[in-house]
Amino acid sequence: MSSSALDAEKIESKQEERTANVHRLDSLNLLIFTTLLVVVVLTIWVFKRRNFRYIHETCLALFYGFIIGAVLRHTSTSDTKTNILKMNDTILPKNNVPNYISFEDSNMSAVYLYSFQGPYQKDTVPLDEHKVMFNSEIFFNLILPPIIFHAGYSMKRKNFFRNLGAILMFALVGTTIACISTGIMVYGSVHAFSSLDFFSFTDSLYFGAIISATDPVTVLAIFNDLNVDVDLYAIIFGESVLNDAVCLVLANSIEKYVAGAILDKFDRTLMLKSLGNFFVVFIGSFAIGSGMGCLTALMTKFTYIRDFPLLETTLFVLMSYSTFLASEAAGLTGIVAVLFCGIFQAHYTFNNLSKESQQRTRDLFGLFNFLAENFIFIYIGITLFTFPSHKWDMRFIILSIMAICLARVLCVVFLSFILNLFRKNPISWRWQMMIIFSGLRGAFAFALAIRNVSTHARSLMYTTTSVIVIITVVFNGTLVAPVLKLLKIRMNVSEEIETTSSRDRYRIMGNNNDEQKKQSKTWLLNKWSHFDKIFMKPLLTHSYPPLTATLPPCLLPITRLLTTKEQRTMSRNENSLSNLTPSMMNSDDSILNNNHTVPTLELIDMDNSDDYLTGSNFKSNTRTNQVLDTQMDPLVQFDDDETLANNIG
Amino acid sequence: MSSSALDAEKIESKQEERTANVHRLDSLNLLIFTTLLVVVVLTIWVFKRRNFRYIHETCLALFYGFIIGAVLRHTSTSDTKTNILKMNDTILPKNNVPNYISFEDSNMSAVYLYSFQGPYQKDTVPLDEHKVMFNSEIFFNLILPPIIFHAGYSMKRKNFFRNLGAILMFALVGTTIACISTGIMVYGSVHAFSSLDFFSFTDSLYFGAIISATDPVTVLAIFNDLNVDVDLYAIIFGESVLNDAVCLVLANSIEKYVAGAILDKFDRTLMLKSLGNFFVVFIGSFAIGSGMGCLTALMTKFTYIRDFPLLETTLFVLMSYSTFLASEAAGLTGIVAVLFCGIFQAHYTFNNLSKESQQRTRDLFGLFNFLAENFIFIYIGITLFTFPSHKWDMRFIILSIMAICLARVLCVVFLSFILNLFRKNPISWRWQMMIIFSGLRGAFAFALAIRNVSTHARSLMYTTTSVIVIITVVFNGTLVAPVLKLLKIRMNVSEEIETTSSRDRYRIMGNNNDEQKKQSKTWLLNKWSHFDKIFMKPLLTHSYPPLTATLPPCLLPITRLLTTKEQRTMSRNENSLSNLTPSMMNSDDSILNNNHTVPTLELIDMDNSDDYLTGSNFKSNTRTNQVLDTQMDPLVQFDDDETLANNIG
Repeated sequence: MSSSALDAEKIESKQEERTANVHRLDSLNLLIFTTLLVVVVLTIWVFKRRNFRYIHETCLALFYGFIIGAVLRHTSTSDTKTNILKMNDTILPKNNVPNYISFEDSNMSAVYLYSFQGPYQKDTVPLDEHKVMFNSEIFFNLILPPIIFHAGYSMKRKNFFRNLGAILMFALVGTTIACISTGIMVYGSVHAFSSLDFFSFTDSLYFGAIISATDPVTVLAIFNDLNVDVDLYAIIFGESVLNDAVCLVLANSIEKYVAGAILDKFDRTLMLKSLGNFFVVFIGSFAIGSGMGCLTALMTKFTYIRDFPLLETTLFVLMSYSTFLASEAAGLTGIVAVLFCGIFQAHYTFNNLSKESQQRTRDLFGLFNFLAENFIFIYIGITLFTFPSHKWDMRFIILSIMAICLARVLCVVFLSFILNLFRKNPISWRWQMMIIFSGLRGAFAFALAIRNVSTHARSLMYTTTSVIVIITVVFNGTLVAPVLKLLKIRMNVSEEIETTSSRDRYRIMGNNNDEQKKQSKTWLLNKWSHFDKIFMKPLLTHSYPPLTATLPPCLLPITRLLTTKEQRTMSRNENSLSNLTPSMMNSDDSILNNNHTVPTLELIDMDNSDDYLTGSNFKSNTRTNQVLDTQMDPLVQFDDDETLANNIG
Repeated sequence: MSSSALDAEKIESKQEERTANVHRLDSLNLLIFTTLLVVVVLTIWVFKRRNFRYIHETCLALFYGFIIGAVLRHTSTSDTKTNILKMNDTILPKNNVPNYISFEDSNMSAVYLYSFQGPYQKDTVPLDEHKVMFNSEIFFNLILPPIIFHAGYSMKRKNFFRNLGAILMFALVGTTIACISTGIMVYGSVHAFSSLDFFSFTDSLYFGAIISATDPVTVLAIFNDLNVDVDLYAIIFGESVLNDAVCLVLANSIEKYVAGAILDKFDRTLMLKSLGNFFVVFIGSFAIGSGMGCLTALMTKFTYIRDFPLLETTLFVLMSYSTFLASEAAGLTGIVAVLFCGIFQAHYTFNNLSKESQQRTRDLFGLFNFLAENFIFIYIGITLFTFPSHKWDMRFIILSIMAICLARVLCVVFLSFILNLFRKNPISWRWQMMIIFSGLRGAFAFALAIRNVSTHARSLMYTTTSVIVIITVVFNGTLVAPVLKLLKIRMNVSEEIETTSSRDRYRIMGNNNDEQKKQSKTWLLNKWSHFDKIFMKPLLTHSYPPLTATLPPCLLPITRLLTTKEQRTMSRNENSLSNLTPSMMNSDDSILNNNHTVPTLELIDMDNSDDYLTGSNFKSNTRTNQVLDTQMDPLVQFDDDETLANNIG
């Protein structure tokens, strides 16, 4: 072997050795996270056994993250710290560093830089390489999609749709107002009181967008435990889910506007373009998400893949994930797409799945959601101490907190006033206070902030967002129960429904249904609900009545093709039912409204939604299965309908 | 704003734009994979419906990968190709390129380089950065662990342990012989017939190690469908699972030897060191894997976390993954650790889990396994066309194939001869042929090969391994059924057991147990089995008899602490049983051997192992649950034992 070849091999094998060391540290870092997650799980278990329900797991995850962050910070030698600082100064302009911490590995007697992606040896660290990319890639491609999909998939859709007006108002209009007003307030106060003159107006707006994403996961867990009024729950939940999407699109639009403004000089039409972009992205993502949801429903309806539950579950997971990817690849926002995909999957596809897959998909996304959420909070905790490009400015933090509080009060009070002009069940001031109080900032705001820490302004935003997330999660999270009591908000609302048997509950739902419908449904919602029942549900699921009954007879050749055997069988049972209870079949409306699939399904949704996190799903799952059994077996349904009919007539 | 600041912002926003574009392409690439997986799932479904069982999903995945790879290759312009080649020549010495393909994105009017990690723009691509790191990180940290864990977790342990001698012989001794003999043959023939003089002897040995990892997933799926003799199944399955681990450790040892030889000059003691390293790594990984398995069992036994199935499942998943990480962080091999962790989790922890978690964990890892496996085969298919650092050499491929065939025949025949000297149930020549024929190369060999393509020799290995994987999967996979018929190997063996009811089967198992034990268990295995029953099972699970009964009375204070309420309750039932059937309790041996947990558990393992992939798990799960019910309820057990006792006495 020639000596140059030997030299090359030497370098080679040294590189390989370094790679192996890097890999070991990488594993060690991940191991820290997994161990912390295990500790979180065990602590939650202890709390649950002792019925100590007022500290949420996200608080725990934050807390453990803190501790480890502090330990890592203080075990890293001062030498290392100065080295890093020197590097930052020399290599990177403008504090351009990735998130890493450092520690001494005595075995390898070399200082490694720890980044979230993995540690690099000091002399070869490709610092600016991973600057913006990594965290956003991990957070937005792996960690957030399951959280958002789970939110859509496990949503209590009935209450959600009943309060759709308020939810859309708060999420779309409210968030936009909050974003702009926070931006203006921050910009004004920053330039009036402090010397942060690098903080431009677009920076302020961008900050307004990322900090307006609310995430009341702690609040909702406690709502769930205490059975707080379902409508209030639905409004807070619905707002927070949709407003994540709105904030993301707003932030992207502002970024695009800034990019455009710098590259093409300032352009008058740019603002309009950005506004247009906002709607295009939102509507496009909605279209992809709902489209993929419907496609999955069609696939599962007509392929009978449910004979093979593993394949079915796999298909479901893959289709849901490709919704995200397709939307991202098209330059839209996957998060919005995946949210609506989740809603559509739950509304249509879920009914076509086998029992195993229904259970499995809910379990799977429940598990992913749990892991992803706690992972983020641990990460927030750790990085508060160890992230090197923090930019602390107490005045800015205090000003921001004041601004977001003021903006939230303004939005909620103003929009509630407008909503109460139209609502039959007005939003009381107590509810308004509770909605304001539930404006926690969580994982999503953090993820938006960490996407980019390349400038002074962005680092400042990142640090401030971290602090705000921690303060709101700990402070508001802990005080929910006292505040609920203070505001005298109705609790244990659904208890009478919870304690009765499934058949009784079925009857209650059936009785309440019509009244509630007339009470709170808006015109648009009624139209959609009608369309859903005569076209969407019969087309996408095995529900009754089939398309052959709901669409005009001239379309029979097509509708017959789109009707499955199950639907035809059900149809026959339904006909015999109609002979028994002719009164129910007289008006066209009652055929549609009294079809048994819809109320049963809504009942299931009520049961399954948020119990995962509280650990009480064992009980609720068995209940759900009972209901499902009832739904699957036409004879039992028939039986139930008879009871229902006897009860009504 | 000053003009320099504006310039900086311009660069900034350009970078951000590029990041966004990179992200879009990234999503597009992942979308291709997910779409292909969806197509694979749908095709499998079609095949299953038509009862066309002779093409396995891995073949399908390979096939679809081919097509997309070919399309991607031919849609990339020739311009791009030359650009890439030019870059390789100028930037990188020795063909030092990561795996990427290229395609023209007309929208962005720029050529992007596609790597598995994500595409980079031509001018900024940090080529040698990701050379070795990425694929190994993804494959070895995310894709392989679930596959290997699933193998351990779903193993038919009863037959596995019955044939442990043969399995260990084939996996440990056989693989080492195969590695060395393949290495020698390849080195000899390469230097005799062709001009690949850069291929050193250590390269040959390394190639021998990576190409000796067998992966008969296709064969076993068909074995499962046709109910081929369980002992043959166990030998082939066990060998392939353990030999992945052996190959990995061998390859690492050889790499370490090479690194050491280059850095410290050639040293006589190095060879011994590498050999020592082999055993240290293997035993260390085994210790971590089994230790973590036992720890999880203890956790789930004493915490009663099973009251909260979601927490329980999460804990299980986290503990299993941290086994992998802990082992990697300690510089050992996570794959080996995770394999034994899986076996221990199945043997102990599984019994402590709630029914929900038992089902969920099996489903979850079944799903991960399915996705990971098909992902790898799609990837193999795609990269065959698009991987730029392929090094094709037909002579080398042909020589390698001849070498591995020869080595396999040699090993199997030689080791079978030795084994047959001791086995009461000898390995017939038909079985030997079948074992030889099942020596497919699969995902693991590919993963080992793609870990490092930094030199000519490694590229050559990579290309050759790809080709061998494809040939063996397609050729051997398709011909299993005809070969089985040709060799007249017993099929439909377990059918008489399959068709009888669970209680009858229980009786059959109970009757056969003692005879089989005496027939085929070795001395060591009997010792272990005894230790397992008097110490491990009572300590780690809720099984009967408890430690208070199996250990000397002087340890009572400790053993009482380690015995749970369940075990005490069971104990009382058992005592009343002993009053009924005193004959069973006379000899110490019968207390231990006739305890009801063990045969029931083995029955469960028989049912659940490989049905996931075949889609028939719906049926088998219900069966399993019946058996579990029997196991859970002490009264039913009592009943069963009575039947058993009546039957025997």
